[in-house]
Amino acid sequence: MEYYGAIEAGGTKFVCSVAADPDHYFSEIRFPTTTPQETLAKAVLFFKEQQQKYNLSAIGVSCFGPIDLDKRSPTYGYITTTPKAGWEFTEVTGLLERELGLPVGFDTDVNGAALAEYKWGNPTKVDSLVYYTIGTGVGAGVVIHGQPVHGLVHPEGGHILVRQDKEIDPYSGFCSYHGNCLEGLCCGPSIKERFGVPAQDLPSDHPFWEILAGYIAQACVTQICQISPEKIVLGGGVMEQKQLFPMIHKKVLLMLNNYVKHPMILEHIDQYITPPVLGNRSGACGAIALAQLLQA
Amino acid sequence: MEYYGAIEAGGTKFVCSVAADPDHYFSEIRFPTTTPQETLAKAVLFFKEQQQKYNLSAIGVSCFGPIDLDKRSPTYGYITTTPKAGWEFTEVTGLLERELGLPVGFDTDVNGAALAEYKWGNPTKVDSLVYYTIGTGVGAGVVIHGQPVHGLVHPEGGHILVRQDKEIDPYSGFCSYHGNCLEGLCCGPSIKERFGVPAQDLPSDHPFWEILAGYIAQACVTQICQISPEKIVLGGGVMEQKQLFPMIHKKVLLMLNNYVKHPMILEHIDQYITPPVLGNRSGACGAIALAQLLQA
Ligand SMILES: Nc1ncnc2c1ncn2[C@@H]1O[C@H](COP(=O)(O)OP(=O)(O)O)[C@@H](O)[C@H]1O
Ligand SMILES: Nc1ncnc2c1ncn2[C@@H]1O[C@H](COP(=O)(O)OP(=O)(O)O)[C@@H](O)[C@H]1O
Ligand SMILES: [Zn+2]
Ligand SMILES: [Zn+2]
Repeated sequence: MEYYGAIEAGGTKFVCSVAADPDHYFSEIRFPTTTPQETLAKAVLFFKEQQQKYNLSAIGVSCFGPIDLDKRSPTYGYITTTPKAGWEFTEVTGLLERELGLPVGFDTDVNGAALAEYKWGNPTKVDSLVYYTIGTGVGAGVVIHGQPVHGLVHPEGGHILVRQDKEIDPYSGFCSYHGNCLEGLCCGPSIKERFGVPAQDLPSDHPFWEILAGYIAQACVTQICQISPEKIVLGGGVMEQKQLFPMIHKKVLLMLNNYVKHPMILEHIDQYITPPVLGNRSGACGAIALAQLLQA
Repeated sequence: MEYYGAIEAGGTKFVCSVAADPDHYFSEIRFPTTTPQETLAKAVLFFKEQQQKYNLSAIGVSCFGPIDLDKRSPTYGYITTTPKAGWEFTEVTGLLERELGLPVGFDTDVNGAALAEYKWGNPTKVDSLVYYTIGTGVGAGVVIHGQPVHGLVHPEGGHILVRQDKEIDPYSGFCSYHGNCLEGLCCGPSIKERFGVPAQDLPSDHPFWEILAGYIAQACVTQICQISPEKIVLGGGVMEQKQLFPMIHKKVLLMLNNYVKHPMILEHIDQYITPPVLGNRSGACGAIALAQLLQA
């Protein structure tokens, strides 16, 4: 059995674990994300201890962003221009490599989650997959031809511009860059700002969920038109509202209006746009998948 | 030298040629797209004659759509649910393979053009590229990790939903499926319907070009957020209006509002969103690239 170190590096908390795959977890530690020095030192200490017991092959880090994924760049493996105070231009992979003497796989949290769903949540063996998180923020990871997509920087699918009908949703949006982009209209905090209660406390039959489903459906339609993914996975805290799924399915069909004629859309959209098969473990599993990718 | 047969299969005309690469063209024939039987027979006849002279290695077809690119499907290599009368469910690759005894590479016209720009219009060696045509229709081809993207069907980037300000552009849209989707608002015929003159006759200082640039900029922003391409190429008849490029550059920067901090966007957007390097030959070259891809 191969052992991997997995770091789910979130803006609120870090989860570090040793695992072979999603079914074989050996130890785990969780701690809040404080300063880069303190937080990364805790991760290093945990893995140094684990290395006494386990012969780790690699570390995978699924990380909040934006991050630098360009191997030719001097800041490869850094968190870059993040709004998280104190974390701008923080070296991550270089530090872990030096301290632990292990290769480090690195990607965005959502690319990690997309890769995990692709590897372990994919019984029908689709070749391309988009993973959205609708949570504190909105992000999208993309796997195409079996690889996470980076491109110029990495996908930032939360910030596409969507149509908003101000008559039914007059809210100005939560995104500090774009106001009413997808994230600005859909993230958990935007719901709290609209209604004064946390998203989880809005009744499941509140009319707002239909409006929200409309924005998320637009995001799905845009992905379908632009890259035609074989599957779309919607995760994150807000998607705990399971009543959203059938609403999104119906609205995607209405918006596409029969233009994309494929049975996965026309007949099986409930299997095409789904919750994460790995549940709320896609993030953690993403880090394992990123470690394994180094050996592929 | 390897010789390839290239078919640019358009809804209006077919262009068949023999070429080794974009700099080595040996013969060409053009004819209008009539019935499938007549049109494909003309193509077969041309290549049978050429096979007397040239030892062709493969045929590439860059084709109007939608087409079936799923190798496991019984209609692989067919034009499928096209609005072009008489062409629904027309077998293309199977027929050419049987008649000419050659392997046939097949993809959408825009994926072909994207691949050609990737192979021959790419001095800086970008790894991912989006190619838009803004012409009679609007389409987008996508190359990622050096391969055209297919996914569930293939990209149909012309049909994303964009924001429209009805105060400045009250037009209802030309798309028979979606009305005011990107294609519905940007295709050449939509301009003719708005102003009563062909797009090429609208003065280059007409205020409409600023409005159009806004829609195309939204399409670019959506691609940047969703797949972060390393380059975006804008071709097709409407993009002959070269004044559109600086307008699009400015609007993309405004819409992104400094969110994606990469020098190609912040400093060199004029090299990031560009006309096709191959000019109006990207389509024809696409067919060569698709033939060559069979041997990669
Ligand atoms: N059951 C729920 N229904 C609706 N919103 C929820 C629910 N649970 C959590 N949320 C919202 O999701 C957000 C947290 O998202 P989550 O994916 O859990 O974490 P993060 O995005 O910070 O990693 C919060 O804004 C919270 O209000
Ligand atoms: N110079 C021009 N300026 C604006 N529009 C143009 C120009 N030339 C052609 N067009 C428009 O582009 C469309 C044709 O697009 P084109 O890319 O040439 O062909 P197609 O999309 O059919 O392959 C027509 O609607 C035409 O009006
Ligand atoms: Zn935003
Ligand atoms: Zn449309």
